Amino acid sequence: MCRWLAYSGTPVLLDTILYKPAHSLIDQSLHSRLGVETTNGDGFGVGWYARETGTDTPAVLRDVGPAWNNRNLREIAQHVMSPLVFAHIRASTGTAVQQTNCHPFRHGRWMWMHNGSIVGFHQLRRELCVAVEPSLFLEMEGTTDSEVMFFLALTLGLEEDPPGAVARMVGLVERTGRAHGVADPVQMTVAVTDGRAVWAFRYASAGIARSLFYSTRVESLRALHPDVSFLQEVSDDTRLVVSEPLSDLPGAWNEVPEHTYGVVRVGHDSLHTFAPLPA
Amino acid sequence: MCRWLAYSGTPVLLDTILYKPAHSLIDQSLHSRLGVETTNGDGFGVGWYARETGTDTPAVLRDVGPAWNNRNLREIAQHVMSPLVFAHIRASTGTAVQQTNCHPFRHGRWMWMHNGSIVGFHQLRRELCVAVEPSLFLEMEGTTDSEVMFFLALTLGLEEDPPGAVARMVGLVERTGRAHGVADPVQMTVAVTDGRAVWAFRYASAGIARSLFYSTRVESLRALHPDVSFLQEVSDDTRLVVSEPLSDLPGAWNEVPEHTYGVVRVGHDSLHTFAPLPA
Amino acid sequence: MCRWLAYSGTPVLLDTILYKPAHSLIDQSLHSRLGVETTNGDGFGVGWYARETGTDTPAVLRDVGPAWNNRNLREIAQHVMSPLVFAHIRASTGTAVQQTNCHPFRHGRWMWMHNGSIVGFHQLRRELCVAVEPSLFLEMEGTTDSEVMFFLALTLGLEEDPPGAVARMVGLVERTGRAHGVADPVQMTVAVTDGRAVWAFRYASAGIARSLFYSTRVESLRALHPDVSFLQEVSDDTRLVVSEPLSDLPGAWNEVPEHTYGVVRVGHDSLHTFAPLPA
Amino acid sequence: MCRWLAYSGTPVLLDTILYKPAHSLIDQSLHSRLGVETTNGDGFGVGWYARETGTDTPAVLRDVGPAWNNRNLREIAQHVMSPLVFAHIRASTGTAVQQTNCHPFRHGRWMWMHNGSIVGFHQLRRELCVAVEPSLFLEMEGTTDSEVMFFLALTLGLEEDPPGAVARMVGLVERTGRAHGVADPVQMTVAVTDGRAVWAFRYASAGIARSLFYSTRVESLRALHPDVSFLQEVSDDTRLVVSEPLSDLPGAWNEVPEHTYGVVRVGHDSLHTFAPLPA
Repeated sequence: MCRWLAYSGTPVLLDTILYKPAHSLIDQSLHSRLGVETTNGDGFGVGWYARETGTDTPAVLRDVGPAWNNRNLREIAQHVMSPLVFAHIRASTGTAVQQTNCHPFRHGRWMWMHNGSIVGFHQLRRELCVAVEPSLFLEMEGTTDSEVMFFLALTLGLEEDPPGAVARMVGLVERTGRAHGVADPVQMTVAVTDGRAVWAFRYASAGIARSLFYSTRVESLRALHPDVSFLQEVSDDTRLVVSEPLSDLPGAWNEVPEHTYGVVRVGHDSLHTFAPLPA
Repeated sequence: MCRWLAYSGTPVLLDTILYKPAHSLIDQSLHSRLGVETTNGDGFGVGWYARETGTDTPAVLRDVGPAWNNRNLREIAQHVMSPLVFAHIRASTGTAVQQTNCHPFRHGRWMWMHNGSIVGFHQLRRELCVAVEPSLFLEMEGTTDSEVMFFLALTLGLEEDPPGAVARMVGLVERTGRAHGVADPVQMTVAVTDGRAVWAFRYASAGIARSLFYSTRVESLRALHPDVSFLQEVSDDTRLVVSEPLSDLPGAWNEVPEHTYGVVRVGHDSLHTFAPLPA
Repeated sequence: MCRWLAYSGTPVLLDTILYKPAHSLIDQSLHSRLGVETTNGDGFGVGWYARETGTDTPAVLRDVGPAWNNRNLREIAQHVMSPLVFAHIRASTGTAVQQTNCHPFRHGRWMWMHNGSIVGFHQLRRELCVAVEPSLFLEMEGTTDSEVMFFLALTLGLEEDPPGAVARMVGLVERTGRAHGVADPVQMTVAVTDGRAVWAFRYASAGIARSLFYSTRVESLRALHPDVSFLQEVSDDTRLVVSEPLSDLPGAWNEVPEHTYGVVRVGHDSLHTFAPLPA
Repeated sequence: MCRWLAYSGTPVLLDTILYKPAHSLIDQSLHSRLGVETTNGDGFGVGWYARETGTDTPAVLRDVGPAWNNRNLREIAQHVMSPLVFAHIRASTGTAVQQTNCHPFRHGRWMWMHNGSIVGFHQLRRELCVAVEPSLFLEMEGTTDSEVMFFLALTLGLEEDPPGAVARMVGLVERTGRAHGVADPVQMTVAVTDGRAVWAFRYASAGIARSLFYSTRVESLRALHPDVSFLQEVSDDTRLVVSEPLSDLPGAWNEVPEHTYGVVRVGHDSLHTFAPLPA
């Protein structure tokens, strides 16, 4: 179980979104309200795009201790600005607490983070790994279900068609699960980005999927809360997608419906139904 | 805020006392019930005497991550036996999360661990450090109030008269506090050992002191719970002193009264009133 | 590139073999003389059997920093005795510096450590991983060639016939290498133990294999050096196998010939020719 | 023993100065040529100013492992640009390997890093700590001589008169040393900055001071090496001060004379004689 946050919009100091909110992701690392576990202390990661440096590849900082006491994360948060940020705090469900198991995962200019699990992953791992395209297999460095899901999605066309590739990945995991007696293997919220758009998915093979929320349009929020200065400073197309709300600000957060994905890019956002596809 | 455990008695595998109990210290690192914080994930330490190796100095293993996911701690727990064990999980109140701030602290064959704080320590730190005997000052490597309390107690005669030295240490901290406008600076449970006896203290300058419990005499527990096999295997003089009970076993745990210290040694244990002394 | 040490014989304090020798493994972590790199600072591990605790499974302590400054390793070394010890210092050739990539690796009561590499491992990794028996695949947690070699050897019968299984593993790697255009993929010294015997291998598909030495019989060394007290205290069947000599003691060390393996067990040791077998 | 680097000039990607040079600081962490030790693997730090974020306080990233295998350092280096960078690699002379002992140290907008040692620091530590101004004492978190030197310099006026304060600090350490029988306690190269200018000092109470070099004026270098593209891209007032040259580029490096300090600021640099002053 984990918690994550995706930010897209006006360049901000990471501190503004990671530490400042009343129920920030850092606070959630100690006191998650909606997660399966209240503590998410088994590592963390933050990824951001720094286009002024002339590279499309995001920076990814990951470490194995809890986010709440990490001084380097605080330093970065107070000195780095970015228009597109992924952040993740981890609660291991058994796999090793190591940097290569921390999210976000990266491939070229793409980043991926996940909350949830593949039920019965221990039994399915080998077959799912073998389904990863050989040249991508070499890039896998960790042992999590989340990383395998990313590399399966890449194998199945993530770079050309993100929603389709994620749907095919889920289809493949479900089919593989059923072949091994795991009826409903997928439980996930996933965020993925190429540095331009963010796609966020909420899905479970059965039962209720992990919580996921997106922020209300900035112009509506401004009307509701003319006194919140942060809202005056960000552009209309700024959006947050989060595992749980960062504040109790009335009207600020909307639950992503189950079996749904959203797309956020400059000047556009939308919600769509999500369903697995045959791989 | 922290939690700790002291064991004295029949040599046991560390696993038996650290991991096996229903509400073990490892469980408390994620889910403390009686602590100020539920999470104690800012480092840990375990110290034990290994007399078969011909040394009086205890081994002390300390690390900066949470106890709950530390594989080396689990390895040690499953492969080391000892008749006298200290274990501690830390929740930092602001000082750096580093090995030299983890308990237990050691000086020769002595170990010390603490739960609580010196209120206003930031203001008192320099004066208290200066009160440490110069040759002992050189051994201090961290920045916690707990370590300064230990070295003050050593300065004030811990090795000759543990209860007296701790009483003088508390007296000195209270006097120093008052001189700086901190009326009631001490909040503590402390355990200290020379490898033979364990002294455990519960005290607060004002208000209720942090929780502290000791285990019921083994012969009484055996009569109550003839089915608990662990009780059949340990000697009559085996004792545990803990920040919070390790189980819900009826009749197993007794609260240490406030302003009290206890002594545990082979064939003897006793409780005494504790009051600060002029340093 | 790495360095390692295997000890079998009279129970010793780990300190005696890890820190005390003039050119100890800890010294080699900073100043290796015969290794490909002088520095081996990318993690370490030590494994030992503690039979007094009633388990056949060895303890394995591993960490990601350099051995030379690790305080927990020093604590363990000064407080743990064992009759059979493996120790390893790592110099990564590119794979992640993480606990799950540190040696020794363990499976049940077996331990494995390796110095060398599979040339072109990046290209061969997927095919070699797929050749691991599925139930064993699930135990692999890291990304090193060394761990894959261990699990291939387990797949090929290590627990029944160690020399045969290692020969078949090498045969499989060489065949796989050739199929991918890597003519001579194996460069290795390997130590493996079940807690009773130690098998040590020196082999390279081509060229000179990594250095490997074994200690001279204790009775011969005693005659040569009647003044070395350590030699008076250990039994005749005590042996060390090491990547490089721990001292300049004349007559103490013998090079393991290339394409050779040795077996060390109580009351017996022997050298044999090693050659790959078809898997 | 340590190695360090100070950069001032045209904003650069940290990678350009930390990893790219043939004999970069990262390379020096494994293969120092001019240092007392060839390996500097006991932690590292990098500090930089990010003025676009509206703060004068530098970011400081520090960690306890070796620089050569740290992935977060590499991420930062590839995604952060700055006009003023301090970087340091540490070889501990015995004090704990912990984040709070890593350079650069920071106080407000000031940074400090040091190579060398206070001879006999163990004996002098308490008296030197007591000489630190009480409100500054509270900021000290580590146990190194280097940090004490910084806080003594701050106590003695660093923020008003850097060269004078450093001279008084050295005078105080030398006087304290002599009072304790340490005739010649100071061995140092030090860099200090307020985010605008860099002051670099080379001094030893006796004998030869640690090595220190500064880069030749860019316009002269360009004339010598018209083919080196990096030189075309940086401004005339760009300067590096380093423990040892980063390359073998002929004419690029000049040794700072002993008992000398230099000042580097935009449009101005100069060398001056350095001598201790009474504190």
